[in-house]
Amino acid sequence: MANETFLAVAQSMGGLKVSCTSRNFEFILDEPQKLGGSNEGMSPVEALLASLGACKVIVARSFAGMHSIHLNDIRVEVEGILDPDGFMGKNKEAKIGFSTIVSKFYIEADNTDEEISDFIAFINRTCPVADTIENAPTIKSEIHKL
Amino acid sequence: MANETFLAVAQSMGGLKVSCTSRNFEFILDEPQKLGGSNEGMSPVEALLASLGACKVIVARSFAGMHSIHLNDIRVEVEGILDPDGFMGKNKEAKIGFSTIVSKFYIEADNTDEEISDFIAFINRTCPVADTIENAPTIKSEIHKL
Repeated sequence: MANETFLAVAQSMGGLKVSCTSRNFEFILDEPQKLGGSNEGMSPVEALLASLGACKVIVARSFAGMHSIHLNDIRVEVEGILDPDGFMGKNKEAKIGFSTIVSKFYIEADNTDEEISDFIAFINRTCPVADTIENAPTIKSEIHKL
Repeated sequence: MANETFLAVAQSMGGLKVSCTSRNFEFILDEPQKLGGSNEGMSPVEALLASLGACKVIVARSFAGMHSIHLNDIRVEVEGILDPDGFMGKNKEAKIGFSTIVSKFYIEADNTDEEISDFIAFINRTCPVADTIENAPTIKSEIHKL
């Protein structure tokens, strides 16, 4: 085993704006004004979809050569369906998070349809973010008072 | 039901660098040089942890008043344990994605320990990103040739 620990910090900046940092990188997440935010960044659920799409793009680029895929370009558009009535407490039947996530691969490669299809199946099962969503990790929580 | 569709686009920028966009917002994800990237942004697994932490911060800020929590400050540090030997294909026993995720709440609120503890339990079960990870959505994939 070669377990590694990854870390991200989400610091409230007042209102619903959040500074997200990991190593020396940062991005801002926020909510649209209709949900009470100041709309200065994408929302966490959008960032989750973005991280999933980016992970698939990176797996594709990393493993194309090994799979003899001549990859010219790749874009992954990720759609997620979510009923905000769930987390808003308006509908107890509604799932809190995404009920469906669809990854749409837009790919340009000098390969057959079957080769591309097999490679995308490989990407979907080798993507760490996808696996985290499809096969839930052990979840823990700690409280520290400031 | 009031389903809404959220969308993010992950576009390869060459190498392992990816432009992630949703609505009019963008951030860059990448991999460190030791994994073949150019280290120009956090990685997708770090961005996943960041989106989880930010979602919990936003749920806290959004619902503190309703729960009579006098919230002065909140930061959520999210640690994830992942064995890269899994997705690298070096160890078939290793989980591809995170095996454990720990949310560490750092909170300053003028409330009792029990009130804070109850509120954090509420946050954990009301967070859309957490629910997406803990209760897998239906997953679909489409292929479009460029």
